[in-house]
Amino acid sequence: MIRFECDYAEGAHERILRRLFETNLEQTPGYSEDHYCARARDYVRDLCEDPGLDVHFLVGGTQTNAAVIAAALRPHQGVIAAASGHIAVHETGAIESYGHKVLTVPSGDGKLSALDVRRVHENHWGDVTHEHMVQPAMVYISQPTENGTLYTREELETLRGACLDCGLLLYVDGARLGYGLMSEACDLTLPELAGLCDAFSIGGTKQGMLFGEALVLAHPLLKRDFRYIVKQHGGLLAKGRLLGVQFCAMLEDGLYFDLAKEADRLAMTIRRAFEERGFPVLFDSHTNQQYPILPDHLLAELEEDFAFSFWEKVDGEHTAVRICTSWATEERAVKALIDALDRE
Amino acid sequence: MIRFECDYAEGAHERILRRLFETNLEQTPGYSEDHYCARARDYVRDLCEDPGLDVHFLVGGTQTNAAVIAAALRPHQGVIAAASGHIAVHETGAIESYGHKVLTVPSGDGKLSALDVRRVHENHWGDVTHEHMVQPAMVYISQPTENGTLYTREELETLRGACLDCGLLLYVDGARLGYGLMSEACDLTLPELAGLCDAFSIGGTKQGMLFGEALVLAHPLLKRDFRYIVKQHGGLLAKGRLLGVQFCAMLEDGLYFDLAKEADRLAMTIRRAFEERGFPVLFDSHTNQQYPILPDHLLAELEEDFAFSFWEKVDGEHTAVRICTSWATEERAVKALIDALDRE
Amino acid sequence: MIRFECDYAEGAHERILRRLFETNLEQTPGYSEDHYCARARDYVRDLCEDPGLDVHFLVGGTQTNAAVIAAALRPHQGVIAAASGHIAVHETGAIESYGHKVLTVPSGDGKLSALDVRRVHENHWGDVTHEHMVQPAMVYISQPTENGTLYTREELETLRGACLDCGLLLYVDGARLGYGLMSEACDLTLPELAGLCDAFSIGGTKQGMLFGEALVLAHPLLKRDFRYIVKQHGGLLAKGRLLGVQFCAMLEDGLYFDLAKEADRLAMTIRRAFEERGFPVLFDSHTNQQYPILPDHLLAELEEDFAFSFWEKVDGEHTAVRICTSWATEERAVKALIDALDRE
Amino acid sequence: MIRFECDYAEGAHERILRRLFETNLEQTPGYSEDHYCARARDYVRDLCEDPGLDVHFLVGGTQTNAAVIAAALRPHQGVIAAASGHIAVHETGAIESYGHKVLTVPSGDGKLSALDVRRVHENHWGDVTHEHMVQPAMVYISQPTENGTLYTREELETLRGACLDCGLLLYVDGARLGYGLMSEACDLTLPELAGLCDAFSIGGTKQGMLFGEALVLAHPLLKRDFRYIVKQHGGLLAKGRLLGVQFCAMLEDGLYFDLAKEADRLAMTIRRAFEERGFPVLFDSHTNQQYPILPDHLLAELEEDFAFSFWEKVDGEHTAVRICTSWATEERAVKALIDALDRE
Repeated sequence: MIRFECDYAEGAHERILRRLFETNLEQTPGYSEDHYCARARDYVRDLCEDPGLDVHFLVGGTQTNAAVIAAALRPHQGVIAAASGHIAVHETGAIESYGHKVLTVPSGDGKLSALDVRRVHENHWGDVTHEHMVQPAMVYISQPTENGTLYTREELETLRGACLDCGLLLYVDGARLGYGLMSEACDLTLPELAGLCDAFSIGGTKQGMLFGEALVLAHPLLKRDFRYIVKQHGGLLAKGRLLGVQFCAMLEDGLYFDLAKEADRLAMTIRRAFEERGFPVLFDSHTNQQYPILPDHLLAELEEDFAFSFWEKVDGEHTAVRICTSWATEERAVKALIDALDRE
Repeated sequence: MIRFECDYAEGAHERILRRLFETNLEQTPGYSEDHYCARARDYVRDLCEDPGLDVHFLVGGTQTNAAVIAAALRPHQGVIAAASGHIAVHETGAIESYGHKVLTVPSGDGKLSALDVRRVHENHWGDVTHEHMVQPAMVYISQPTENGTLYTREELETLRGACLDCGLLLYVDGARLGYGLMSEACDLTLPELAGLCDAFSIGGTKQGMLFGEALVLAHPLLKRDFRYIVKQHGGLLAKGRLLGVQFCAMLEDGLYFDLAKEADRLAMTIRRAFEERGFPVLFDSHTNQQYPILPDHLLAELEEDFAFSFWEKVDGEHTAVRICTSWATEERAVKALIDALDRE
Repeated sequence: MIRFECDYAEGAHERILRRLFETNLEQTPGYSEDHYCARARDYVRDLCEDPGLDVHFLVGGTQTNAAVIAAALRPHQGVIAAASGHIAVHETGAIESYGHKVLTVPSGDGKLSALDVRRVHENHWGDVTHEHMVQPAMVYISQPTENGTLYTREELETLRGACLDCGLLLYVDGARLGYGLMSEACDLTLPELAGLCDAFSIGGTKQGMLFGEALVLAHPLLKRDFRYIVKQHGGLLAKGRLLGVQFCAMLEDGLYFDLAKEADRLAMTIRRAFEERGFPVLFDSHTNQQYPILPDHLLAELEEDFAFSFWEKVDGEHTAVRICTSWATEERAVKALIDALDRE
Repeated sequence: MIRFECDYAEGAHERILRRLFETNLEQTPGYSEDHYCARARDYVRDLCEDPGLDVHFLVGGTQTNAAVIAAALRPHQGVIAAASGHIAVHETGAIESYGHKVLTVPSGDGKLSALDVRRVHENHWGDVTHEHMVQPAMVYISQPTENGTLYTREELETLRGACLDCGLLLYVDGARLGYGLMSEACDLTLPELAGLCDAFSIGGTKQGMLFGEALVLAHPLLKRDFRYIVKQHGGLLAKGRLLGVQFCAMLEDGLYFDLAKEADRLAMTIRRAFEERGFPVLFDSHTNQQYPILPDHLLAELEEDFAFSFWEKVDGEHTAVRICTSWATEERAVKALIDALDRE
């Protein structure tokens, strides 16, 4: 069985484990106040070309999203997200558990447009009873989205403009940021991204680390007392240096990006193989998640040897699945999948 | 200026004030542990023909909804509501402020169907990742809805069946329950309603009291320790007997229902007057809220003498407004409106 | 049975009810946007001699406290209070239900000193692990306290100085503010109080209104979007003018203060009667709440005709009770109590 | 510099890292649904001699405590803890952030007695206004406590009896459980502990793992839907097998206990060295945390070569510090400390 169902099926890139071994018996202060975390923060600031950024390391994505949103909002405020956004669907109400409403906007491709944001803003402030409704105060997007789609630089600039006009903070969930930035379809650099939002995350878990997310804060409001918020959310890892060591290993010479680029390439190989054989895709993804639509009988045969994630029934006889590559995917696994496709 | 914009523009029915005067200097225990509240609870139980019901008195609707929902749900659970439901839109996130997600379902007429509920339930439990999503545990409806529409007895029975099958509690927000029960289109009695849900409220504020909602609890889970929950929500009125005195005055001889019936009659008079003159209504309401669609020029003229609530722009030249009658509406105000309509 | 157990056993001063009658059928906008509320706000600002204050009207004290504290704090911040403070003990965890810790300080007389506040502040910031602890950000006191005791002007100035030095907001719960200000032992005026804190409340419920608290906000942070917070807390009364009408009746010619002064006088009459007969008091209260310590046999006899609140067992044979006078207490009730004392 | 300031200064026991290496490229399902977690759960159940226990793996202690407490309590309920308890002091209000009050009891040695618990219970239910106060519903203790002290079997049995009598759940925070169970002063076995509480944790982070806590649930109420709660708290690790692999390595042949035993032995060596030289200890700890009281001049000299945690000023010239041994402490570090003590 070859698993394409997610991008967290294996452990970590070998270099990560080697570094953990090498540094294992060194004694360091806890709670990310060690020199590895300090160095990793510097790597992030250097890569973003902005020495003024604050960088925090958390364990997982739900925690990271909940912490930054809780830090940003007052009690009567909510966060705008696509209806398919991770915080709106797949975090068991973590945002609500801290008291905040997710204000959802329908979205076919998983993206929010500047127009969407302006409309939510205007609908709120244009209503004479707006004090009876949750006030939009932050915009949540992910790059890439849950559907593998990407914001172009222009789209992000336009969205950022809308946020500035409307007084909204902009947060970019980058759980798969590497796969996004290294996509052939991405015209956005990391420094550009960093300059266009108030906060964003750089995901490690799905990109070759054992675990870990770097949260980058640009806005002063978010920076203030943020370590308290992390602690309150159970995100201040006692052996915080584990996060520092891993991010150092990933960022010191671009391993994070190299791994993502190769995973994207393999994902596009899979996409093209499906499309060339007449199987369309559900979303126009150029990242490591692909969503081919397959006849059910073919899917059943493929699933004898390969694991995919069910996405949705497209009609009575066709199903869309999600196929992920990752930092750990090997060329021969991709070849095996395409061979199987030709055999059926 | 004659105000039709809401059903809480005046104070209270004269009998209410008279009773407050008569009982004013009597000394009673606080926090609704007085004999007026006791008697009012008995009136509610008698009217519902169920001596086993618990009855609590709260000040306002948002508080009542938030308290009963907080009492019902565990942290990972949410409440299903129509997207236009009061808790989903007009309570400034009170439900979320206590940690819970409102799971919304689009609805044209403001009602939830048994099918809607079954679908939410099946989508949740049928998804292998359901532990990553908020678990539906309660259904919130209002009778009548925000659109003035009503559930028939059969609809409510079917909905109740779906709730029982799916293990969901059913709560009916009755902020305007009197207007609903007394509508010419309603085939549901109060005892029937009480028998078909786990909790419901009987609104006083919009039905002729100064303020006050009776919350009726049938399910043992909800009954347990509910006064603590009311206190935590700031809903345990020190001079609780004010609620008891008012509900006694309203329920002892059916005043609550008589006032609602007359308001409904006047609302239908207005609706028919608009329809007969060729102005359609946005929702098929048979209760005290009516939603005529008017040409903008006509609306502008009417608004010189009458206050309505803006509802929505229907097209470039037409607007739907909400017109409310209430326990305080006089026949001559309705006549003045219809006369004005004929004049324009 | 004559009730001295609390100050909310009766309805409201006659003038309140008369005004509600007189204004009853007037149509006004809802949610405290009417002209009565506007005028009542002006009365408050005039009495405080500060036109820049924001004034909001809420229904009850728990709601008022929870709303202003939720508006003031970020998620990792807490509010300092005496261990006997109302928010620490008697609000069923309302503050915690909105996510905040009450940081308590032991206090014999119910008051917090400037030294207490500085110590909490220094303990927090002086601890290298302070990010693992709730950050103090607000100070809650009540005037008078739960024990009937009062802050002098000098004490309040010193406390305010400590708050400013430590970057803490100061909130004064004035559920019984009138009884405090009119006490023979009070050297603090309302304008002085208003100038020495960031927010305070003027309680109506226990001072002769049916219900209602005025919350006065001085600090810009608290003012911002406060109506949203009130709505989220279920505190935005639909018929908000009921609050405006009542506060107008109370404040227009000083009735609020006259009633309080008389209640304080009667309370001191009771205190002195006990003391002159050799019964000490538990707290040095000069306000409407008195705490005599009585032999249990005497207490049992008195309780045949009079209702008190149990406060605490002082030893095996003595009990402290709370005796309240109020705006509604009559001289003859006080005389009856003293006569009974002499008889036993 | 030799660090004795905490028990999480190093990485992990070598076997842990080796196992992560060996299993690194295996593909497994995410979110702790893999076979390593399954096996680790079985190890826990076997060691506890109770096949009916549910076992969940979380990343950190604050998260674990917050999750089990949120799962246990209804909104108006609180958890009883010693005033020095971790949840009361060192979790930045995580318990409150989910809406619950920590009901604290002063405690000299960090332990709660059965009498403490009965008193809180009786004070609550014996007060006629108990609905105005947070209802105690759970007891939180830690074994060992924050002060290194231990509950004997008899003490735990008595406490359990009080909890059962009072209808309170009992949760034992075992962040350092191994150090507790293997202490020379502990007469309690793991199966006995498991049989005497409703939930407890087995800490990994401070006992030789990179990170990870096993939460063991015995009470049916807590078991229900617990994975949802973990996800909501950000505790459902994507690569959950990392927790399974580590706990397998620790529990398969008793490494967890062997490491703890040795750390306890070294800690007692340190304690005795101090005591023999006339330096008393602040708490009677027989576990890996020791609290000697030192003259300030001696402390200053020792701190040139050794890192301790400041605990408290005992008087103008003496300070109590915390000295931790851990699974990673070497005999020669202990010898160096004692030698230094003799030198000064």
